[in-house]
Amino acid sequence: MGENEQKVSLIPLGGLGEIGKNMLAIRYGNNILVVDAGLIFPEDEMLGVDIVIPDITYLLEHKSLVRGIVLTHGHEDHIGALPYVLRELNVPIYGSRLTLGLLEGKLKEFQLDGSAKLNQVRPRDVVKMGPFKVEFIRVNHSIADALAVAVQVPVGTILYTGDFKFDQTPVDGEMADFARLTQLGDAGVLVLLSDSTNVERPGYTLSERVVGRTFEDLFRQAKGRILVASFASHVPRVQQVINTAYRYGRKVAVTGRSMQNVVSIAADLGYLVIPPGTLIELEEINSLPKDEVVILTTGSQGEPMSALSRIAMSDHRQVGILPGDTVVISATPIPGNEKTVARTVDQLFRLGADVIHEAISGVHVSGHGSQEELKLMLGMVRPKFFVPVHGEYRMLVKHARLAQEMGIPESNVFVIENGQVLEFTRTKASLAGRVTAGRVMVDGLGVGDVGNIVLRDRKQLAQDGILIVVITLNRESGAIVAGPDIVSRGFVYVRESEPLLEEARSKVIQIMEKYEKQRVNDWSNIKAGVRDCLGKFLYEKTRRRPMIIPIIMEV
Amino acid sequence: MGENEQKVSLIPLGGLGEIGKNMLAIRYGNNILVVDAGLIFPEDEMLGVDIVIPDITYLLEHKSLVRGIVLTHGHEDHIGALPYVLRELNVPIYGSRLTLGLLEGKLKEFQLDGSAKLNQVRPRDVVKMGPFKVEFIRVNHSIADALAVAVQVPVGTILYTGDFKFDQTPVDGEMADFARLTQLGDAGVLVLLSDSTNVERPGYTLSERVVGRTFEDLFRQAKGRILVASFASHVPRVQQVINTAYRYGRKVAVTGRSMQNVVSIAADLGYLVIPPGTLIELEEINSLPKDEVVILTTGSQGEPMSALSRIAMSDHRQVGILPGDTVVISATPIPGNEKTVARTVDQLFRLGADVIHEAISGVHVSGHGSQEELKLMLGMVRPKFFVPVHGEYRMLVKHARLAQEMGIPESNVFVIENGQVLEFTRTKASLAGRVTAGRVMVDGLGVGDVGNIVLRDRKQLAQDGILIVVITLNRESGAIVAGPDIVSRGFVYVRESEPLLEEARSKVIQIMEKYEKQRVNDWSNIKAGVRDCLGKFLYEKTRRRPMIIPIIMEV
Repeated sequence: MGENEQKVSLIPLGGLGEIGKNMLAIRYGNNILVVDAGLIFPEDEMLGVDIVIPDITYLLEHKSLVRGIVLTHGHEDHIGALPYVLRELNVPIYGSRLTLGLLEGKLKEFQLDGSAKLNQVRPRDVVKMGPFKVEFIRVNHSIADALAVAVQVPVGTILYTGDFKFDQTPVDGEMADFARLTQLGDAGVLVLLSDSTNVERPGYTLSERVVGRTFEDLFRQAKGRILVASFASHVPRVQQVINTAYRYGRKVAVTGRSMQNVVSIAADLGYLVIPPGTLIELEEINSLPKDEVVILTTGSQGEPMSALSRIAMSDHRQVGILPGDTVVISATPIPGNEKTVARTVDQLFRLGADVIHEAISGVHVSGHGSQEELKLMLGMVRPKFFVPVHGEYRMLVKHARLAQEMGIPESNVFVIENGQVLEFTRTKASLAGRVTAGRVMVDGLGVGDVGNIVLRDRKQLAQDGILIVVITLNRESGAIVAGPDIVSRGFVYVRESEPLLEEARSKVIQIMEKYEKQRVNDWSNIKAGVRDCLGKFLYEKTRRRPMIIPIIMEV
Repeated sequence: MGENEQKVSLIPLGGLGEIGKNMLAIRYGNNILVVDAGLIFPEDEMLGVDIVIPDITYLLEHKSLVRGIVLTHGHEDHIGALPYVLRELNVPIYGSRLTLGLLEGKLKEFQLDGSAKLNQVRPRDVVKMGPFKVEFIRVNHSIADALAVAVQVPVGTILYTGDFKFDQTPVDGEMADFARLTQLGDAGVLVLLSDSTNVERPGYTLSERVVGRTFEDLFRQAKGRILVASFASHVPRVQQVINTAYRYGRKVAVTGRSMQNVVSIAADLGYLVIPPGTLIELEEINSLPKDEVVILTTGSQGEPMSALSRIAMSDHRQVGILPGDTVVISATPIPGNEKTVARTVDQLFRLGADVIHEAISGVHVSGHGSQEELKLMLGMVRPKFFVPVHGEYRMLVKHARLAQEMGIPESNVFVIENGQVLEFTRTKASLAGRVTAGRVMVDGLGVGDVGNIVLRDRKQLAQDGILIVVITLNRESGAIVAGPDIVSRGFVYVRESEPLLEEARSKVIQIMEKYEKQRVNDWSNIKAGVRDCLGKFLYEKTRRRPMIIPIIMEV
């Protein structure tokens, strides 16, 4: 084997804020293995952007080297970018049954379901992809069928936890595979990449079963209908709602497109066990006594178009809040969503519902392991090198400290950023430059065409609007033959601002007459002059800075 | 006394989300007393809006009845709207020494310091304003000199807590006036309006002194410089930083305009005690050993232009992070600011600082009372009626439940919204209609001119940008003599979209030729046609909906 093949490199390609979350590339010689291909939702300042996907320039530059994509679980932030990736890179995909089930629905929407090469794997399966021996290991998470991935190359074993927690009493009875994790640890793991999401939480993350007990209490006490909002993909949570409803003689109706989708896919695949007669159509809720109804809905993040938001705004066609309803928001707000969730809760209270939403109320537990579970993972695997992933920079730093406290030398712990290449031999690790990585914004059909210039313009337009000045000039004399016409949007309330806009018009006439006299006929100069002069005038009068667009036509 | 004077009404006028927070009107016969006049910061969807102030239409409609404005404390959300209010309603203002000190700085900026009628009050002072006997009662809060207000009218006593907590070991030694609160309770309080901010927190809010102890530990252990970010107006917190710095032989430099402002005002008025030689100029930090430096800064909310954000972005003229610096963020993010704070923290970690920011670390305590303090207030005052204020709707509902648990009958507890009038006799309370109230948006010099139309336009512009089509027509023939010219901003990246825009241009020519043939010369029809046809075309091609502005000129 050549010098080259004695090294293996890790390259986090995805994400925004979070590092190494949505896509990871592993390169060994002339072979690349990709783990996950997820999307994220845009930050506030990405105006008009629909979703954000990882930048796969590096993969496209080395198209012939990519051996396949392995998926850890079926959440959007791990599979959501696949339709975009597959259009340019149709390599084999490996994932568990539920993961592929959820992916198939998504591929259908993009008409890629015929062409994608999907390969189902089970825990402990080992798949050979070029020089990579990839093993799948069961972990717990807030979706069934979540897997860690162990990738063996001649240099050593790379263990990537994916999103995980250790739930000793999981709802589906499927424990994390401690035995295999410790066997790998015994055999020697070169590098561990581990989920840092909850590194700031001490102790253990509570078992999903705790939520079940809370549901028991709530369902027993509630005298009216019960609405439960949850992530659609949180299959174990949905199962608990169904179980508890069944136990207390309630029927379950489902609203929200993604919830209907997931319930149907998960039930078809057997991941959701629904007692016959328990599921009813949404239309049937009104013909049942209130205390026999449960409504399962999307909208736990206060998303404006979700079913729960529409219910809260009295804007849902089939479901309206009745006094005495209990609404359970079985999720915590993702950072950034706190306000929209709070607004939804307020609206529900106003309509007379009781709303159970706080973390302390026990209606939600996290899908990610807390400090003690992160330590347990480190303790079982005992890797030579450690790379914290999945988290904002501060979390990675804290996870790195945790690993050091457990005895991994500081020099063997690496906090890296997206696009950084971390290279390993059997004994050493070192940074080896950078590749193109990061975020690509998707807006409508455009993938990556919205960049800094478009966003900067949208931001200025959003702040103070726009003012358009149109003038038609005589080509020979430079005299104004029509206009100036002024049109503004989002700047001032036009009906009450006619004097201001009239004054702006006179300013433009003045400056154009000056240019005519001076025989200036360089359009870009004239436009800059109009922009400057109007900009100053408007700022002085309003302290606002609208975008000013002068348009000159010649006849 | 007439029938009319035997009633007193409460009208919350301010706020957004929170109810009864920023301004409250109390009406007795032909007399109105106003409590507080605060501002709030705009929600995300109020694009380009600088601040939001209460709608004072009701006060302006009854200008001659307004007897005065009393202020509970000096925070922006209680005094920040005064410059706007005073311009239209120059009535006497009553407040404590620090409150007026902070207000004066603000009035100077608006050149209102000459005309405002400011009256200083001390705890237990009683001021007569028309039929209102107003008494000021000391409470604890995250600013010195915070007061509750008891308003006596012949119908009974109204007690308004303002923002409060009970701190048994306050930093300035000034305890809340339990004696006066219980005396009022014994004498009989008609209605209590109480702060609901922390009703969701069980137990007691920790004493400000706890933060002092945490500072002790941090200052003792830190080997490099210490940066502390806090609200400028949090004078007790600033005092603790100065005390601890002095004790550990560190000098304190101040950065951030509002922090410099408050430190200077509070020190001048004696609310901040600074040992001689402790305060240094920012320029001096580099000539001192690192372990003798403390930098006090604004930016605890991650505000983009604040000193701490600029430090984190390596964009501050005098302060750059040095490895080994400890940054203490001595505040919790206000809902909605979580992400910007997190981003600042990440940047500081990247620069090699250690950042202490979590609530659990003891570097911050709330200024608002938790459940046990709210109960203590209710227990001491034992009001006949209870109106929870200061909080989102769900918090008011929870505070109302708390009061009911303490024995106030459900029929005597009122959760009201801004603008609702709640009317009291000695024995009864009832809703009595609504008045204009709520929010007025301030954008630059414009107060209230930005409304739904402007915001809707800004939102559309922010989402998908704008596309402007300009055509000059011959007045007689209707033939195109110049254009169509197409200009777009924030829609697509123009350099890569020339074919699309060229195709759009042809579409416009086609439709204009059709109109010319059909001799359509109704401009608004033509414009609507262009907008429709282009809108459909662009949506099909891009799945985006830019604002389309057709402009037609005639020569």
